[in-house]
Amino acid sequence: MTTYTTEIDVRFRDIDAMGHVNNAVYATYLEQARTTYFRDVLDADLSSIATVLASLSIDFRRPVELTDGTVAVEIAIDELGTSSVTMAHDIRTGGEVVAEAEATLVSLDPDSGKPAPIPDEHRSAIESYHGV
Amino acid sequence: MTTYTTEIDVRFRDIDAMGHVNNAVYATYLEQARTTYFRDVLDADLSSIATVLASLSIDFRRPVELTDGTVAVEIAIDELGTSSVTMAHDIRTGGEVVAEAEATLVSLDPDSGKPAPIPDEHRSAIESYHGV
Amino acid sequence: MTTYTTEIDVRFRDIDAMGHVNNAVYATYLEQARTTYFRDVLDADLSSIATVLASLSIDFRRPVELTDGTVAVEIAIDELGTSSVTMAHDIRTGGEVVAEAEATLVSLDPDSGKPAPIPDEHRSAIESYHGV
Amino acid sequence: MTTYTTEIDVRFRDIDAMGHVNNAVYATYLEQARTTYFRDVLDADLSSIATVLASLSIDFRRPVELTDGTVAVEIAIDELGTSSVTMAHDIRTGGEVVAEAEATLVSLDPDSGKPAPIPDEHRSAIESYHGV
Repeated sequence: MTTYTTEIDVRFRDIDAMGHVNNAVYATYLEQARTTYFRDVLDADLSSIATVLASLSIDFRRPVELTDGTVAVEIAIDELGTSSVTMAHDIRTGGEVVAEAEATLVSLDPDSGKPAPIPDEHRSAIESYHGV
Repeated sequence: MTTYTTEIDVRFRDIDAMGHVNNAVYATYLEQARTTYFRDVLDADLSSIATVLASLSIDFRRPVELTDGTVAVEIAIDELGTSSVTMAHDIRTGGEVVAEAEATLVSLDPDSGKPAPIPDEHRSAIESYHGV
Repeated sequence: MTTYTTEIDVRFRDIDAMGHVNNAVYATYLEQARTTYFRDVLDADLSSIATVLASLSIDFRRPVELTDGTVAVEIAIDELGTSSVTMAHDIRTGGEVVAEAEATLVSLDPDSGKPAPIPDEHRSAIESYHGV
Repeated sequence: MTTYTTEIDVRFRDIDAMGHVNNAVYATYLEQARTTYFRDVLDADLSSIATVLASLSIDFRRPVELTDGTVAVEIAIDELGTSSVTMAHDIRTGGEVVAEAEATLVSLDPDSGKPAPIPDEHRSAIESYHGV
């Protein structure tokens, strides 16, 4: 499967009192990867389409420091369901995996707010990009 | 089992472009609950003791809004191992569960940075507080 | 002049690699004070009324630490103009001023996005609260 | 005077409920510019040298949106004193100035925590870089 990768600059503000990138910032890195993925792969704006994050899990492998400079967030498709998509993520610095994560997004009907089928053009774009 | 609960004020800055508390902020709420738990139950400072967050998972039930005012984060002990502790969390607003989460912390040897037994006084304090 | 004060809990995430509350977080504390001020004094929601922050300045007196627990942000009215209001802020922990700040908000016409007179009911509420 | 400029990617998390980059995030952008400036110009790590932000002021010209993609933060030296340096900043997107800011940093004696002369090698590096 073709994966999607985006590079994110580590900011001074991402570091916490421990001297490492704060755990919550990994969720922000994953969100940022989804943002560019939606733009690049789905030609869509994360904040304007009716999608909600249903679940998120992160396994932290080793700390990331400011001097690491950037992190690369990879998106692979774990499962493409009727109304949900589960993304598997590797987060790397310098080629090394520093965290693994999984995120499930659910497509919503903008009127009812209830789960709705993923729009056909998004499904096609995902399948076409990843070759699944 | 006795659970520990802390109340956290929702800030304007916690809200994102969707108009809801941002997903990464839930991780910050959980961290804040651990911070007060370490202070109240272990009489310890989260940033000065050798503990690392190994994994985190969050299931989002419904959005939290600024007008919800506060969230209550509950800590229960799921598993108290030799060198790790897994906490189960309910996050509530107005009594309703808005998210469930699980976090595993690992105790480290401050010199080697390798997993080390949870200090006896912390283990006793946890067992005594929760009645486990 | 009567001043308005709100208490804000310091979060672990507010602390940066220096071990102190990060400078940008002071701006968040000021914004949070405006949020509760708009709610308490103007009976309005900061994110739904047409107001924009035009300028902000902060003088940092001494670092704030996690163990300070809370900060108190005070709002006094420095100048109440036709379409703008300048707020003067003391930020305190334990009674001591740790920062002073000034923020100018401009009222906008929601349609044109241009400066517009502060709504009469807001002007009255401000004058009445502060006794100016 | 030669100025220093760094490009910063706008993150989804930088956007607030108004749909624009949050005001506090400008302070983070300025801090990030200082971080790379310290690395590139002073060959120093912002978190390990004894410098404190004494004051900060920002004039907001127009909102920045996620679709702006990046902001460019410029650093010029306004005043290079004995123990303090005042930086003047333009923040631009697409060549347009969206905010102007000023930040004063004070060099500290790491032992006493009192203001101390800027180290000679830093002063030389600043003068040499900016041609002042």
